[in-house]
Amino acid sequence: MAELQSSLLQEIKEQGDLVRKLKAAKEANEKIQEEVSKLLALKAQLNTEDAAPQKFTLKTPKGTRDYNSQQTTIRNNVLQRITTIFKKHGAECIDTPVFELKEVLTGKYGEDSKLIYDLKDQGGEILSLRYDLTVPLARYLAMNKINTLKRYHIAKVYRRDNPAMTRGRYREFYQCDFDIAGQYDPMIPDAECLKVVTEILDVLDIGKYILKVNHRRLLDGMFEACGVPADQFRSTCSTIDKLDKLPWEEVRTEMINEKGVTPEAADKIGEYVRLNGSTELADKLLEDARLSKSKSAVEGLGGIKLLLHYCELMGIKDKILFDLSLARGLDYYTGVIYEAVLTQPIKIGNEEQTIGSIAGGGRYDNLVGMFDSKNKQVPCVGVSIGVERIFSVLEAKLAAGDISVRTTDIDVYVASAQKNFLDERMKICAELWNAGIKTEQSYKKNPKMLNQLQHCEENGIPFAVVLGESELKRGVVKIRNITTRAEEEVSRENLVEELQTRIEKLGLKEMNGPVA
Amino acid sequence: MAELQSSLLQEIKEQGDLVRKLKAAKEANEKIQEEVSKLLALKAQLNTEDAAPQKFTLKTPKGTRDYNSQQTTIRNNVLQRITTIFKKHGAECIDTPVFELKEVLTGKYGEDSKLIYDLKDQGGEILSLRYDLTVPLARYLAMNKINTLKRYHIAKVYRRDNPAMTRGRYREFYQCDFDIAGQYDPMIPDAECLKVVTEILDVLDIGKYILKVNHRRLLDGMFEACGVPADQFRSTCSTIDKLDKLPWEEVRTEMINEKGVTPEAADKIGEYVRLNGSTELADKLLEDARLSKSKSAVEGLGGIKLLLHYCELMGIKDKILFDLSLARGLDYYTGVIYEAVLTQPIKIGNEEQTIGSIAGGGRYDNLVGMFDSKNKQVPCVGVSIGVERIFSVLEAKLAAGDISVRTTDIDVYVASAQKNFLDERMKICAELWNAGIKTEQSYKKNPKMLNQLQHCEENGIPFAVVLGESELKRGVVKIRNITTRAEEEVSRENLVEELQTRIEKLGLKEMNGPVA
Repeated sequence: MAELQSSLLQEIKEQGDLVRKLKAAKEANEKIQEEVSKLLALKAQLNTEDAAPQKFTLKTPKGTRDYNSQQTTIRNNVLQRITTIFKKHGAECIDTPVFELKEVLTGKYGEDSKLIYDLKDQGGEILSLRYDLTVPLARYLAMNKINTLKRYHIAKVYRRDNPAMTRGRYREFYQCDFDIAGQYDPMIPDAECLKVVTEILDVLDIGKYILKVNHRRLLDGMFEACGVPADQFRSTCSTIDKLDKLPWEEVRTEMINEKGVTPEAADKIGEYVRLNGSTELADKLLEDARLSKSKSAVEGLGGIKLLLHYCELMGIKDKILFDLSLARGLDYYTGVIYEAVLTQPIKIGNEEQTIGSIAGGGRYDNLVGMFDSKNKQVPCVGVSIGVERIFSVLEAKLAAGDISVRTTDIDVYVASAQKNFLDERMKICAELWNAGIKTEQSYKKNPKMLNQLQHCEENGIPFAVVLGESELKRGVVKIRNITTRAEEEVSRENLVEELQTRIEKLGLKEMNGPVA
Repeated sequence: MAELQSSLLQEIKEQGDLVRKLKAAKEANEKIQEEVSKLLALKAQLNTEDAAPQKFTLKTPKGTRDYNSQQTTIRNNVLQRITTIFKKHGAECIDTPVFELKEVLTGKYGEDSKLIYDLKDQGGEILSLRYDLTVPLARYLAMNKINTLKRYHIAKVYRRDNPAMTRGRYREFYQCDFDIAGQYDPMIPDAECLKVVTEILDVLDIGKYILKVNHRRLLDGMFEACGVPADQFRSTCSTIDKLDKLPWEEVRTEMINEKGVTPEAADKIGEYVRLNGSTELADKLLEDARLSKSKSAVEGLGGIKLLLHYCELMGIKDKILFDLSLARGLDYYTGVIYEAVLTQPIKIGNEEQTIGSIAGGGRYDNLVGMFDSKNKQVPCVGVSIGVERIFSVLEAKLAAGDISVRTTDIDVYVASAQKNFLDERMKICAELWNAGIKTEQSYKKNPKMLNQLQHCEENGIPFAVVLGESELKRGVVKIRNITTRAEEEVSRENLVEELQTRIEKLGLKEMNGPVA
């Protein structure tokens, strides 16, 4: 192929030289044109070569996907509802680049750092794709010396993980974060984060849920009280984190065999992590012989009690479960941690699917300081909504026919029953667009009436304007109601108003009617 | 540093061993605790080491930037207006991954391919960041065997170009594309793209503009008629494209010296590219001795005439300029090409800034076929709005004090004049959030009244609910209008309704009042 290409280029060059020579010599035009034609023919071959159908398999990169219009409709709807709640709480929107200097991400994710996507060194800076939105937020706060911020950030992040795409686990996926940064009084912003999660899960209406809470200081105190050496706190923590997937026995074995925890310590931990409840549990643990001696456990339990008090004031205490088995994987949490879990499987078609964790977060008071040259801290607490899981549930419901979505919201289709009405259609479309009416027409000069009406039905377009010669002569056009198939003649002059009235009525009807 | 770290780790290991040994030997608890304390002290040192302030300069990668909340507010506002117009024309939203298989991008951008960001080969597929949204669209259509689609796509794209950030030229920047794919009758979708551009520029209201149009077939025919060899069409085209920045003399020199065009051919081209006008110019050129002999020139001129006819029907012909100097840089255009240009400098503070091109696009009928194994074509036409230039104008106006933005839309701030009202504030906030009222409060337990009111003023929050002991005893609270400073007592029970009425009134007032 390359050889063929190269010999073709040579031929073209020679033929080009010949043509130029003839022109320079001012030869007869016919003669020149003949050689130009040959040259063009050679070029044409070259273009075909250039545009040769490709050989590789057409696909998106592993673990990624396109969103078609139904999927973006679902996604935008979910994100819109979430954004409304973030804004109701006064959060501002910020945005950061999709990549960061690699150094910004270094040392922030522990073992998971191997999942970071690096960019190729093409000269200049060494860059990596963002792994979450929390580290870029911390970099942003430190870089701009910002001490207080309540912000939301909805954007895609990147992890070279093993994808499980049917369950909403991708290598490119949305994160949907709400964080409050600033030196404030204990648990006040933390409690608001929990309130935000309940509002979001209520409005998305995807089933019953519980919000598990725990405290990293309590976990540390518990490990300390059970005799786990301090350097094993974090790794023991990440083993505890597996309790939502593994039975205690397996977690215990991993602790002892892989993390070097003594069997005695493991058994003591085992007693604690079985516990869950509410304020009365925190009170009981404050009396616990071992825990009451640990400064950090007492601190954590005090925090939990205060948090539960605020949750009660805000009317969400019945949704909160203080659960000592909740650990969360990430290293950077320093205080309260939480996770929202759906407590019932979701019905999709005739099947039920278990979703589990759907939001999570916690307090991280030391992350911003890692970016500050004087180690100046900005305490932060935040929550991330697992929107990909929500998308995958809704997409599965769509596929099962449980829900339907409309991917455009066109109100009017301008159609013609006869030929040669394109000019009139164009004029009417422009008139309707200028009046703000969502309008479409066929891009064919003389489309068939049946195809035009079919397009309306398939796309849920409520009204068609139907043009006809005899009507136009009388200064009228027909408005067809696509659902009822009723047609009414209206004055061409009043078309915009007539349509606006009908669209408004329809809107009111839909708002009062049942939800599809 | 690393050495220090390593000796510390060794000490920790030894101390840990000691503790474990004591525990295993069931030594006295006091003795064990003593050694545990030493161990924890060592750990604490380690943590400080871990969190040592970093040494590199904190910044975003070259050519990129963060968007603060004012900038995202401006951006989201602009994108929202544009999206509304795309949807008014029935466009659906699709989305594609931020990276593609490198092969997908190969051979699509000519010389500019060197500006593509590649990802590092970390095992697995070889990937590149998307360079525009057009090639991913073509890949999407071919991969899913889609023959017709009207879609918009708003997303960031990546180019390793020389940034000029004050003028809105970044390495990471938004594209905002509207495209119509499908085999339709000539110029009908093309004309709608122009209509879309005029609606967007009208609604953004950033000044007078003109929409230049030309046709690639006419350019080819013109080059042919002037004696440029076919293999120099594209490179000559990209030289012509510089006419908006360079005078003809310089373009002529580049053509002759760098592109190998003969001086005679260049002079003939020079005569044509000076021409611009409307339908009458197309008619005149159809009579031109040289052009009338070129099949492709005649085809292009016919297309331009039809396009202008449709623009006249849609009432936008006065904004269109048929301009033979418009060439557009990209290789893949095959038919009509267009570019919107602001015709007046924009006033920013006391200075004027020239913006130039603000939207562009054209027809590309052969791009989808490059991805199809049978070379099956899906003709496309589209437009891209240069939103970054619009953002930079609005941001400059913001900086100059010409416009102002509100980054949150909080309506109510719950404040207290005295200490120990946090519990009551929490209850009221939850009540207002549950009623859908955009509400904030201080995250401090006992905030100062002055600070709370100042926060309202700084953030444009219209109302404060002010709690006081004597009022609460009487079952009332005060609503303070932040602008007028008037305070009214309302029943605590009716607080939600009272606030809703005031917020609604305010909304109506703002809608009827002058635009800020």
